[in-house]
Amino acid sequence: MLYFENDYCEGAHPAVLQKLIETNMEKLPGYGTDHYCESAKEKIRTACGCPQADVFFLVGGTQTNAAVISALLRRYEGVIAPVTGHINGHEAGAVEYTGHKVLALPQKEGKLSADDLRNFLKTFHDDGNREHMVFPGMAYISHPTEYGTLYSAAELEALSKVCREYEIPLFLDGARLGYGLACGCDVTLQDIARLTDVFYIGGTKAGALCGEAVVFPKGAPKHFMTMTKQQGALLAKGRLLGIQFDVLFTDDLYKKISENAIQAANRLKEALCEKGYELYIDSPTNQIFVILENSQMERLSRLAVFSFWEKYDDMHTVVRFATSWATRMEEIEELISVL
Amino acid sequence: MLYFENDYCEGAHPAVLQKLIETNMEKLPGYGTDHYCESAKEKIRTACGCPQADVFFLVGGTQTNAAVISALLRRYEGVIAPVTGHINGHEAGAVEYTGHKVLALPQKEGKLSADDLRNFLKTFHDDGNREHMVFPGMAYISHPTEYGTLYSAAELEALSKVCREYEIPLFLDGARLGYGLACGCDVTLQDIARLTDVFYIGGTKAGALCGEAVVFPKGAPKHFMTMTKQQGALLAKGRLLGIQFDVLFTDDLYKKISENAIQAANRLKEALCEKGYELYIDSPTNQIFVILENSQMERLSRLAVFSFWEKYDDMHTVVRFATSWATRMEEIEELISVL
Amino acid sequence: MLYFENDYCEGAHPAVLQKLIETNMEKLPGYGTDHYCESAKEKIRTACGCPQADVFFLVGGTQTNAAVISALLRRYEGVIAPVTGHINGHEAGAVEYTGHKVLALPQKEGKLSADDLRNFLKTFHDDGNREHMVFPGMAYISHPTEYGTLYSAAELEALSKVCREYEIPLFLDGARLGYGLACGCDVTLQDIARLTDVFYIGGTKAGALCGEAVVFPKGAPKHFMTMTKQQGALLAKGRLLGIQFDVLFTDDLYKKISENAIQAANRLKEALCEKGYELYIDSPTNQIFVILENSQMERLSRLAVFSFWEKYDDMHTVVRFATSWATRMEEIEELISVL
Amino acid sequence: MLYFENDYCEGAHPAVLQKLIETNMEKLPGYGTDHYCESAKEKIRTACGCPQADVFFLVGGTQTNAAVISALLRRYEGVIAPVTGHINGHEAGAVEYTGHKVLALPQKEGKLSADDLRNFLKTFHDDGNREHMVFPGMAYISHPTEYGTLYSAAELEALSKVCREYEIPLFLDGARLGYGLACGCDVTLQDIARLTDVFYIGGTKAGALCGEAVVFPKGAPKHFMTMTKQQGALLAKGRLLGIQFDVLFTDDLYKKISENAIQAANRLKEALCEKGYELYIDSPTNQIFVILENSQMERLSRLAVFSFWEKYDDMHTVVRFATSWATRMEEIEELISVL
Repeated sequence: MLYFENDYCEGAHPAVLQKLIETNMEKLPGYGTDHYCESAKEKIRTACGCPQADVFFLVGGTQTNAAVISALLRRYEGVIAPVTGHINGHEAGAVEYTGHKVLALPQKEGKLSADDLRNFLKTFHDDGNREHMVFPGMAYISHPTEYGTLYSAAELEALSKVCREYEIPLFLDGARLGYGLACGCDVTLQDIARLTDVFYIGGTKAGALCGEAVVFPKGAPKHFMTMTKQQGALLAKGRLLGIQFDVLFTDDLYKKISENAIQAANRLKEALCEKGYELYIDSPTNQIFVILENSQMERLSRLAVFSFWEKYDDMHTVVRFATSWATRMEEIEELISVL
Repeated sequence: MLYFENDYCEGAHPAVLQKLIETNMEKLPGYGTDHYCESAKEKIRTACGCPQADVFFLVGGTQTNAAVISALLRRYEGVIAPVTGHINGHEAGAVEYTGHKVLALPQKEGKLSADDLRNFLKTFHDDGNREHMVFPGMAYISHPTEYGTLYSAAELEALSKVCREYEIPLFLDGARLGYGLACGCDVTLQDIARLTDVFYIGGTKAGALCGEAVVFPKGAPKHFMTMTKQQGALLAKGRLLGIQFDVLFTDDLYKKISENAIQAANRLKEALCEKGYELYIDSPTNQIFVILENSQMERLSRLAVFSFWEKYDDMHTVVRFATSWATRMEEIEELISVL
Repeated sequence: MLYFENDYCEGAHPAVLQKLIETNMEKLPGYGTDHYCESAKEKIRTACGCPQADVFFLVGGTQTNAAVISALLRRYEGVIAPVTGHINGHEAGAVEYTGHKVLALPQKEGKLSADDLRNFLKTFHDDGNREHMVFPGMAYISHPTEYGTLYSAAELEALSKVCREYEIPLFLDGARLGYGLACGCDVTLQDIARLTDVFYIGGTKAGALCGEAVVFPKGAPKHFMTMTKQQGALLAKGRLLGIQFDVLFTDDLYKKISENAIQAANRLKEALCEKGYELYIDSPTNQIFVILENSQMERLSRLAVFSFWEKYDDMHTVVRFATSWATRMEEIEELISVL
Repeated sequence: MLYFENDYCEGAHPAVLQKLIETNMEKLPGYGTDHYCESAKEKIRTACGCPQADVFFLVGGTQTNAAVISALLRRYEGVIAPVTGHINGHEAGAVEYTGHKVLALPQKEGKLSADDLRNFLKTFHDDGNREHMVFPGMAYISHPTEYGTLYSAAELEALSKVCREYEIPLFLDGARLGYGLACGCDVTLQDIARLTDVFYIGGTKAGALCGEAVVFPKGAPKHFMTMTKQQGALLAKGRLLGIQFDVLFTDDLYKKISENAIQAANRLKEALCEKGYELYIDSPTNQIFVILENSQMERLSRLAVFSFWEKYDDMHTVVRFATSWATRMEEIEELISVL
């Protein structure tokens, strides 16, 4: 069976695993205070061009979103997100569980526009009843988005500008950031560090067994570590995260292995178009959304595993094929041959 | 200055106040265990045609919504509401503060349709990712709605049917229920008791100093009183609520005094239409939404107090005039004379 | 039946009720923005000798405790309280419901000592594992305490000094503050305003139908009103609270009516001692704790209503008699006659 | 430097790591739905003698405690724990963050006694004010405890009996369960499955990189998986946990590797006693608590890493030496040689 269901179906990149083996019996202090964590943080700071950044390692994406958002918001604030944002639909209400509302705004291809953001903030602050409403306390975006799309540097600049104008932090969910950086878009890691107040570099979907690196370019909120502990998000063997990110940020490995997913995705997209399939959205990263006629979908589902995304109409369905750092070109060709 | 800003600008109906005076020095047990509370509950049960109902008295509307919703939802569930529902926009995130998401659905004139509700529930249960999503655990509607509109008996039946089909409770926010019952619509208190799983009869906006009567026609969740205590919603001098509702539910006072607001509103609407004003929405109850040209609005605001509702376009604004049990027809005529 | 069960068994002081009647049909804006609230706040500021204080009116004690504590604590902080503190045992976990731990310290006659507080804070800050623990973020005391006892000015000074040293706010729960001020102890309202960061003046138990006045002598946290809304603690008809406190703080009424409770309590205590009853604790305020032999308790409970407090031993029980602003000396004498 | 600071200072047992390597490129579904998780669950069910048990894999201890406790408690309930319980002091308020109080009871050597539990429950249910209090909704114990001590089978039976009598679940925190099972105490895994309602088998401290296996012998609460997602505790690459536990529960590896820690600890205890050191507590498991004279402590701390536990008196300190599955006897002998 061909497997394109998601980008977290394999273990870790071999170099990551190798380092875990080599360091296995070293006795190290817990909770992220070991020297591998320190080294990984330093490498990430360098990659971000941000020597003063605070870096933390958490285990997974939903956990990271909830930890960051609940740490930054004041009690009476909520987080703005595009309605398709992962926190709004697919995290089982993790943000609300911490007591905060997700303020859902319109999206286009998964993205929040600076105009919509500004209008919302302006309308809120002009509203005479605002003291009875949830205060917009930060903005959440994902890059790549849930639809695999990317913000351009100009779009990110514009969002950042609005956030600064209204003095709310901008948080970028980079669960798939590697694939965003690898596909040749004009947003670099340094741009992100410059334009956001906090973001995370996803490991789980790009080479690690688990782990997300949270970066606060302008410094973390006080006692962020204790807050992660309070949410059950502080790993005792922090080494597991530090070692992995240390490897991923050595010799640009994170970006290099991500490029593989892009090449595989590009080849697949090309073939899909050649064969007359219709893309639901033109994603430049490792997620490909295709509109399949239902009987076609059924036939293909006997040959390959992919994700149901949403119903398109009574005859068609949107499905997703995901590639990853581990996808082999042979698999792509095999899939193409049965399309 | 003429005052039409809201329906809670006076104190209590004189009969209510009179009873508070008469009973003032009676020594009564606390926390709603006194005989006035018992008497009021019994009268409400009778009015609802629901002898087995559990009735509780809480102090205010937002408090009641948060108490009821958080008591009924399981940890992994959220509450469905029309996007204009009071809990979604104007309660400062009180529901989210208790850890639950408001699942906002489309609205029409402030109302949730049975079709939209069914589609949402069906789509959720068909979604292969639903274990990663917030479970829809109850439905919230208001009657009258935030726009003063009302569900017809058929609409309420249809919503109730969907809720039963999907085994979720239906909660009706009756902050202004008196005005809904008084205006001749085809939904009675008995209908509401039959078709919902919990609702409240608003006192604050209809004759009381404060107080909302929560009715669970099929019985309350275990230890509801302790949960209200946990939310700071349990009044020590429960008598204050019991006595007020006892009076309001004696000789149909609640409905009778509400009729005054409807008559006043009808007269005002009539005059507005005669004078060529455009209504934003045709509300049958005590809230009248008018589209004013901005200079007109400015002029009127020097003569009367009313509520800004929302911007209509660059030249016009939607404003609200509210009548109440206490509005005198002279005030209406005076307002009409300056329109 | 003689009734000494608690100090909230009557309605409001007649002067309070009278003002509610007189002002009943005045049209006033909502949510505490009316001129009676403003006047009451001003009178309270004056009484506290604290012109710059922020004052808010909430409805009840548990609500006020939860609102103040959750507004002041950071997410990773808990509130220190004596183990007998009302928030620790008798508020159904209202503080924990807002996500915060109550850090219970030893008590003596219901009081927290400055030494115990300092030791706890010092031990915490010396603990190498403190990042894995709940940070002590404020201190809660009640005055009078749950046992009717009072802090001396020296004790309060000492507690305040420790709090300032460790930079945590000191919160004084004054649910029965009137009785504390009326009994001739050396702590004045001005002292409390000077030595604490927030406190409340209880109305429910001293002359009002409901209501507690929260005073932040050094200013309130930003958007405190929105936070109370978020907790369902913001009353629509704020006038109900403002008018009551306006009366209670006119001509020193609050203190004067409280003196009645003290005189009644003193007479009762005297008689109890004369008749050989043993006091459980020597409270100077309006709550009297007596150790009754169980058969004696049974006999008395047929003649008077009082509160079970706790089991003393297999043969004896601690019970409480409470007086109030409304207790008549005849009632006391009648009770004494059956002791 | 000799390292005895804790039992999570190494990586994983080599057999565990080996399996991670072998399975690394297998494409597996996410969120614990892969066949390794299934296999591990089956082996755990068998080891527990409990074929109907529900088993889940979570990442860490604090996370697991918060997930289990918040999933089992009703909104108005708290969790009983000995005052020294990990959840009460060293989890940064993770339980309170989910809205629930920890009801701390006295402890002896880290253990909760059945008598204290019964007394507490009886007193609660006899209290006329219980509706204003936090309901005791479950009991939490750890085995081994925070002091390395163990419940005897009789003690566990007695606790279980009280819990059943009062119809509250009993939860056993087995963060170090392997060391409890390996030291020859009379409580088996089957006993635990029989006597508790939920417990977890700690991986992090006994051979795994991370991971705790939660066992509900009588079935899990509905939608437990969604609740873990809501808390950010659901791992995308569930395989990481499944594979590790599959290895640990093959050929009794979990218990076997734990025995190493016990042998090492026993040898160390023996030597400490021979050399005249005073044990603070006589723990049968892998944690050794010693009272050191302060200058002695200082000298030793230049040679070995161990944990500060608590101040004993002005001259002495309690410290902890921990052994683990990975401790080599040479390290023990080396430590002994410098004692």
